[in-house]
Order: sequence, then C-alpha cells, then structure tokens
Amino acid sequence: MDKASLSDIYHGYIDCLNAQDWQRLGQFVHEDAEHNGRPFGLSGYRAMLECDFDQIPDLRFNIALLVCDPPFVASRLDFHCSPRGDFLGLPVDGRRVAFSENVYYEFLDGKIVRVWSIVDKLAVERQLATL
Amino acid sequence: MDKASLSDIYHGYIDCLNAQDWQRLGQFVHEDAEHNGRPFGLSGYRAMLECDFDQIPDLRFNIALLVCDPPFVASRLDFHCSPRGDFLGLPVDGRRVAFSENVYYEFLDGKIVRVWSIVDKLAVERQLATL
Repeated sequence: MDKASLSDIYHGYIDCLNAQDWQRLGQFVHEDAEHNGRPFGLSGYRAMLECDFDQIPDLRFNIALLVCDPPFVASRLDFHCSPRGDFLGLPVDGRRVAFSENVYYEFLDGKIVRVWSIVDKLAVERQLATL
Repeated sequence: MDKASLSDIYHGYIDCLNAQDWQRLGQFVHEDAEHNGRPFGLSGYRAMLECDFDQIPDLRFNIALLVCDPPFVASRLDFHCSPRGDFLGLPVDGRRVAFSENVYYEFLDGKIVRVWSIVDKLAVERQLATL
C-alpha cells in the first residue's frame, strides 16, 4: 500500500472514531488487533473506545502530525476535553484539559493490527497544578 | 532528502547520544532546535541530554521502531535503566525500570529542528507499584 492510501485510510479511521460509528470500525481495525501489547481483537478495541467516550463525553481526536511509512503510521493526536472522575490516575473531575498522544500503528491488509500508544500524563499533571 | 538517508542520519544521532559524544551533536541537531515547544537551541539541547545522563548513568537509547517520512522521523525508543532520585516525578531511587518514549522529529538541512516527545510515565508507575 502506498503512503497516500495509508494516509487516507488513517483519516477515515479518525473520522470513524469522532463519529462514534462503531459499525464501521471493522473497516479500519483488524480482527486480531493488539493495543499496547494487549490482544484486544476488534471487539476489545471497540470496547476500549466506547469506554473512552463514556468517560470523556466531549472526546474528539485531532491529528496534529502524521508520519506515514507503510505499513506504519505515526500520529500525534491533540485533545482538548473534560474527562470525568479520575483520568490517567489523576483527579481531573470534569475539568477541561489539553494533552497529546503519540501513537504508532502497524497495518495489515489495510487495517490496524498493532498499536503502541503513549498519552502525555505529565502535561495533564502540570495543568491540574495550575487550574 | 530520501527515506534511507534520513534513517541513516537518525541512527547516527542515536549512536552519538549513546557515545555521549557531545562534540558531534551539532552534526545532528540544528542551532535553532526546539524540544516540546522549548526553544533550546543546540546548547540547550546538549544541556538537556547531559542532565539526562547525570541522572541516569546507565542510560542507553534503543530504537524499537522507526517510521521515516521526510522531513519527519517517528521513533519508539526503549529504555532499561536506573534513574537516580525522582524521575518523571516518581521516587525511582536507582531501581531498574523499563519504559518507552514515542518521539517525533522534524529535520531541516539534515538536522533535527523540532522534537515532540512523550515518555511513558504510566509504565514506570506500574513497575514501582510492583517492585
């Protein structure tokens, strides 16, 4: 798969998440998907995302930087949102915070099969200290 | 610059860090380098790295995944090391921990000019809870 096609698929995946269109998630996520070493499969991956949106009703994925090198995509995602209760082990309690996620994806057969994600907990900590 | 050349330069940069060969850092890092939005310049970038090695004498950078899409490089770096005292705000105190960094670099004139880095603090927290 070429770079432009992979970028198009990735943008389609992000649109799917933002629309919470879980019926279409299987177009982008492989049946055998792993996330940070956890063998979620498509159903576990969907459950993780549904849980994220439950905890963060105003969750929205924004692509800040996209690096494509088939079969890999690296993306920096920016978030501005208001997680309920504890988030990343921090008492965010609905306050609005901004943070990023640096995340790598491996694609197989045009679908995400492996994900390595790190969310910027330090950024959230710094904001809570000044809110 | 093509993908293979950028990958070669990046491997040279990592070798330079692991050798702590600060005289050569200017071959890889731009005079106007920024790191997570901080306008460090080459001298500030070097000071950050020297400080890292002071705090973590057994620090070694290991490339786990490299995604090249000129002028960008995305790298997942794996660490197995023993930071002294507090590290990422956690009382690591010389215990050996394993964690990753997902980091993006923008290159200009063959040198790193902008860096967006996130270190996996949650991974360190989980290990301290079980050590």
